[in-house]
Amino acid sequence: MQNIITGTGSYIPEKIQKNEDFLSVEFYKEDQTKIPNSSEIIIKKFKAITGIDERRYVTSELKNSDIGTIAAQKAIDDAGVNPEEIDFVIVGHNFGDVRHGKTQCDILPSIASRIKFNLKIKNPNCVAYDVVFGCPGWLQGVIQADMFIKAGEAKTCLVIGSETLSRVVDPYDRDSMIYSDGAGACILQLDDGKNNGILSHAVQSHTLEEAYHLFYGPSYNPEEDQGTNYIKMHGRKIYEFALTNVPNAMKVALDKSGLKIEEIDKILIHQANEKMDEAIIERFYKLHDKEMPQGIMPMSIHKLGNSSVATVPTLFDLILKNKLEDHSIKKGDVLLLASVGAGMNINAMVYRY
Amino acid sequence: MQNIITGTGSYIPEKIQKNEDFLSVEFYKEDQTKIPNSSEIIIKKFKAITGIDERRYVTSELKNSDIGTIAAQKAIDDAGVNPEEIDFVIVGHNFGDVRHGKTQCDILPSIASRIKFNLKIKNPNCVAYDVVFGCPGWLQGVIQADMFIKAGEAKTCLVIGSETLSRVVDPYDRDSMIYSDGAGACILQLDDGKNNGILSHAVQSHTLEEAYHLFYGPSYNPEEDQGTNYIKMHGRKIYEFALTNVPNAMKVALDKSGLKIEEIDKILIHQANEKMDEAIIERFYKLHDKEMPQGIMPMSIHKLGNSSVATVPTLFDLILKNKLEDHSIKKGDVLLLASVGAGMNINAMVYRY
Repeated sequence: MQNIITGTGSYIPEKIQKNEDFLSVEFYKEDQTKIPNSSEIIIKKFKAITGIDERRYVTSELKNSDIGTIAAQKAIDDAGVNPEEIDFVIVGHNFGDVRHGKTQCDILPSIASRIKFNLKIKNPNCVAYDVVFGCPGWLQGVIQADMFIKAGEAKTCLVIGSETLSRVVDPYDRDSMIYSDGAGACILQLDDGKNNGILSHAVQSHTLEEAYHLFYGPSYNPEEDQGTNYIKMHGRKIYEFALTNVPNAMKVALDKSGLKIEEIDKILIHQANEKMDEAIIERFYKLHDKEMPQGIMPMSIHKLGNSSVATVPTLFDLILKNKLEDHSIKKGDVLLLASVGAGMNINAMVYRY
Repeated sequence: MQNIITGTGSYIPEKIQKNEDFLSVEFYKEDQTKIPNSSEIIIKKFKAITGIDERRYVTSELKNSDIGTIAAQKAIDDAGVNPEEIDFVIVGHNFGDVRHGKTQCDILPSIASRIKFNLKIKNPNCVAYDVVFGCPGWLQGVIQADMFIKAGEAKTCLVIGSETLSRVVDPYDRDSMIYSDGAGACILQLDDGKNNGILSHAVQSHTLEEAYHLFYGPSYNPEEDQGTNYIKMHGRKIYEFALTNVPNAMKVALDKSGLKIEEIDKILIHQANEKMDEAIIERFYKLHDKEMPQGIMPMSIHKLGNSSVATVPTLFDLILKNKLEDHSIKKGDVLLLASVGAGMNINAMVYRY
């Protein structure tokens, strides 16, 4: 018995925020002094490291739960399931609903309750809750759903990753250019015993020294209200942490699956930063004395940025719907999904499509 | 195989906020007009309905994750487990960390990551995440932990419910007098096959008409900034909802356990409102053509108020530690734990001590 993803959906916000749109910004450093370089140079360097050309922002009338609902509805339609048969609605996010122009994160009620409400699902036995687990939140929701089905407590789960990072960024911080908005979703269902579906997973939380590598902190611009918090990161520490730990977690998941590294057809990794993602995958192959194969790692970061919990399900959906050039997934393909983010949390899952 | 609670702990904040402390407040209604009655009359009526004499507030230097850590450490010590053997740290809450005098909810990183950090747990395979599920969040964490153990993915879980509602209340809203701060925790472990432990559970999310019965909304005082949100509720709707649905969910859990209603020794219900809790339990017995037995429902609300996710684990811990007059739990006793709150979510669990 293995659990399979029977449908996917995503929402890519309409508003395109290009790198050029940051040209007039004066960027500040962590020590609250101005960065001496011109924004042109800063943006060029940013592009070279992260690979990001542009990102998407939600329009002012939309909230996180709204875009999560759109992705969820698409996944339901794609799977062809009756929404009233869904046992769990699980939403990964880290900031809840943040209204345009506001700074409070709103998770009362949970984003899962809001999405279930928006979907007009009547069944009270459909349990709706949020999981807060940093960027790996969507994949963690899938892993939790997998465990619920294995425990005999569910047959059909809707798992959504939805985030509006544009609402929580400090405009004076160059790292803010990384962040994007988006939503992705899938339906996970109990299968009848074929050898496809979720084969294994591995999850880690590194907190001892890493808990605050990503955190909520004040603007780098000392002129701004220092009582208001924004998403902040220690980029260098995260880079080193990810390079050391993500390949190992991926290896644990692969080893648990019983498959060989040569059997992996695609690695869908959290779209955090292109250079970092490449370095992680290279090191993962190095752990197995292999070279990273061409085309193993589809990327959407160039046009979509880092939309946190939404990157992996969106990437998955784009490939399945043939919307990502040069990449496709066919029946029987082995996928390795992996994510890293605030917590610091890491997860990886081996999936046979 | 059943999973048992091997240790409990709680933190009751030191600061006592008595009903008299609200005497100088001018209360407003939902329609933002002043309530014509004196605060003395409002408080008297409040006490008659809710049973609350006083509640606890954290002191200014403490955050939600701090008090969650204290409760967690006590549960670890009580269970005598090695913290490095914990597989999951699960935290139920609805507002994250809110600093004194601030209005932003902070869940970056998750409260579970913060608590694991505070506990100095090294093991990266100990997975830390938050569950957002309204007031039933702690019990939901226990139910999730039970499913993870059943799925073979865990043996020892630390589940915490921690909330600082004093940081998110509108001082002009009489409902604010309900809310309190606190934290409770337990260790859930795989047991060796005796007939005690978690026997059954039932969970529901009612969203179709109920999703926004509890919500985040502006102050009732129109002079206050209307862009800042506070915990708000439609009390009458919640009362009717709870009376209709909680007894049924409790019955589902009891039926699944295979036990008879006469076998229940204690019902530990979310401390929401004394009159409502009594009415729920009475109706639960009525569903079985029984009268509510004397002493079946221990209450802590008079002195502790409604601390959301923390009420049930705190109540449980107080009784086990013989700190609640006239109540005790002995080996073999059957407990029915039940909770209702934002979402609107309901859960119930039958447990043999």
